[in-house]
Amino acid sequence: MKKTIAMLPGDGIGREVMNGAREVLSVIAEQYGHEFNFTSGLIGGSAIDERGVPLPDETLELCRNADAVLLGAVGGPKWENQAPANRPERGLLAIRKELGLYANVRPVKAFECLEERSPFKKSVLQGVDFVIVRELTGGLYFGKPSGRSGSGEKESAVDTLVYTKEEVRRIIKAAFEMASGRRKKVTSVDKANVLESSRMWRETAEEVKKEYPEVELEHMLVDNAAMQLIQNPARFDVIVTENLFGDILSDEASVLTGSLGMLPSSSLSLNGLHLYEPVHGSAPDIAGENKANPLAMVLSAAMMLRTSFGLEEEASAVESAVQHVLNAGKRTGDLAAADEQVLTTEEMIAEIKESL
Amino acid sequence: MKKTIAMLPGDGIGREVMNGAREVLSVIAEQYGHEFNFTSGLIGGSAIDERGVPLPDETLELCRNADAVLLGAVGGPKWENQAPANRPERGLLAIRKELGLYANVRPVKAFECLEERSPFKKSVLQGVDFVIVRELTGGLYFGKPSGRSGSGEKESAVDTLVYTKEEVRRIIKAAFEMASGRRKKVTSVDKANVLESSRMWRETAEEVKKEYPEVELEHMLVDNAAMQLIQNPARFDVIVTENLFGDILSDEASVLTGSLGMLPSSSLSLNGLHLYEPVHGSAPDIAGENKANPLAMVLSAAMMLRTSFGLEEEASAVESAVQHVLNAGKRTGDLAAADEQVLTTEEMIAEIKESL
Ligand SMILES: CC(C)[C@H](C(=O)O)[C@@H](O)C(=O)O
Ligand SMILES: CC(C)[C@H](C(=O)O)[C@@H](O)C(=O)O
Repeated sequence: MKKTIAMLPGDGIGREVMNGAREVLSVIAEQYGHEFNFTSGLIGGSAIDERGVPLPDETLELCRNADAVLLGAVGGPKWENQAPANRPERGLLAIRKELGLYANVRPVKAFECLEERSPFKKSVLQGVDFVIVRELTGGLYFGKPSGRSGSGEKESAVDTLVYTKEEVRRIIKAAFEMASGRRKKVTSVDKANVLESSRMWRETAEEVKKEYPEVELEHMLVDNAAMQLIQNPARFDVIVTENLFGDILSDEASVLTGSLGMLPSSSLSLNGLHLYEPVHGSAPDIAGENKANPLAMVLSAAMMLRTSFGLEEEASAVESAVQHVLNAGKRTGDLAAADEQVLTTEEMIAEIKESL
Repeated sequence: MKKTIAMLPGDGIGREVMNGAREVLSVIAEQYGHEFNFTSGLIGGSAIDERGVPLPDETLELCRNADAVLLGAVGGPKWENQAPANRPERGLLAIRKELGLYANVRPVKAFECLEERSPFKKSVLQGVDFVIVRELTGGLYFGKPSGRSGSGEKESAVDTLVYTKEEVRRIIKAAFEMASGRRKKVTSVDKANVLESSRMWRETAEEVKKEYPEVELEHMLVDNAAMQLIQNPARFDVIVTENLFGDILSDEASVLTGSLGMLPSSSLSLNGLHLYEPVHGSAPDIAGENKANPLAMVLSAAMMLRTSFGLEEEASAVESAVQHVLNAGKRTGDLAAADEQVLTTEEMIAEIKESL
């Protein structure tokens, strides 16, 4: 198979973990007889530094000419005083919108060998295996108007939460599709007792449900979901929700596993060009120190192999290698217990390659 | 001391737990020589049934003539098919707005004797003692426009997140005031990397901070806060945030203690008339069965004694009685372990009264 993969390392530890993913993918290509062509583009703070904007046109072009996009992480204190419209995160919001990445998918599944790192009791983690499907190109993130008016104590600031039926339907459909191949249960999270957009969301979920008679649908208020997620996480299969609720709930859920440095995500479009990135951020405090855990990036690459290229065997090989290395007690600093040996980013990647 | 207390039991278990609080307050009045005059009003579903609206004018009048308001809980499946504008929860939103209850205060502190009920490891709960201050009369809950337009797949639904500087300042001030009497740390939670309203929020927090040089201020993004709250909860002292973020985070935080049935809250106005209510809902599944845990309502009454009436000794007496009864292993069904004896609501109240 011949594929072009756009790599956008971004800022901070993004570069280091992306290097790791590239090495792993090269081994896979060699072992399975594929040809992966890697291209590389700027996004976030590094793009601001070199091109003056967080998402240069050439980066978008590069993505559009690729079969899949891998993203590292963006942001850092260096760019904190930029005007809001020109911060690194804007690159992230812009690429989502430009590539139509409407569905962010985050699997949450505990690594048994990392359970001692979770703040949760073992009994709570038993059987946890769910996916959060977050709407990614609408809601408060993009609604107009968004701005200020007036002055002094009467100054007011406004943001707008807006969705069209079409936007809601496609994300809920994505969730039902996913649930069809899993345990057949969709939990749709909203705030329908307060928000009009949530009432439309709920109605639309009911409409979509009619097309999937074998999939169960439950509605849950977002405040209740924030509780259930950590009180009884094993009850969930597929959770679907709007952009900002998804932002909050998926970060909350990431704590369950005690392995934030291990969680991959995919952001899907309708046209087949998808983006994959680790859940963690750019971790400026350890950037450039060869300390970052590259496994979330490596597992994001595995998701790409499976979802974008249909390479199930190759994806599983990468995931097994990760599992094998963890089981052997190899850990980067974020996961190591006080008495355990700590691997560098490069050492961890070497271990993964060896296990492939 | 002579005080009038407006009691709004509401729906479901609201009635049972309110009866309990009234009994406890009567004992306190007797023991300390106070005269508490209890008045009673309708709100929520029961108000819809008897008066056709979730917040009748006479209930508001009753509250305005009182020195403090106690609220049970509202809502239930019976009213789920009411038009949105006439659901039980609307009564709650309306009373907040009408009485100017701009600050919802929820203490989160673990009961040591209930630790085994928490989904969290003991090490995570060590030293947890914080307060969430949630803005309660603004934001997406009340912003206009909120509605629908268009039809078919182009139909769109909109809600508006709006705050004035004045609204933001008063809630942040409330948080700084509270922190001044505690561990002197305010965590202001926003989504300033995306929302204009959050950027104004953050600026205002910085302005207020100047008036409190001895209080530390940190800003935290809401997605990060959803993580930190359960990864490292002992780091927080006072958390202040806008209405919907506060709704989500305070419910999430309530899970920490493993004792949702135990958490009180207060909703404060600027004119001295405050409202107190348990964090839990109306629990229609067990309503009328004499099973509900009345302790959150009793502890809300204790908050009232302290905050509204300045009766520190009386408030502490109630809290000590609760602690004493729990330490003695007395539990309602929500808290009892499989092999423990289960008390009814009334038995639990009798125990509290006896311990006073
Ligand atoms: C950086 C920020 C704009 C972004 C978001 O809120 O979507 C991040 O938190 C995420 O979840 O990818
Ligand atoms: C019932 C609902 C409208 C309410 C809210 O969202 O404020 C509740 O969740 C709460 O926190 O008191």
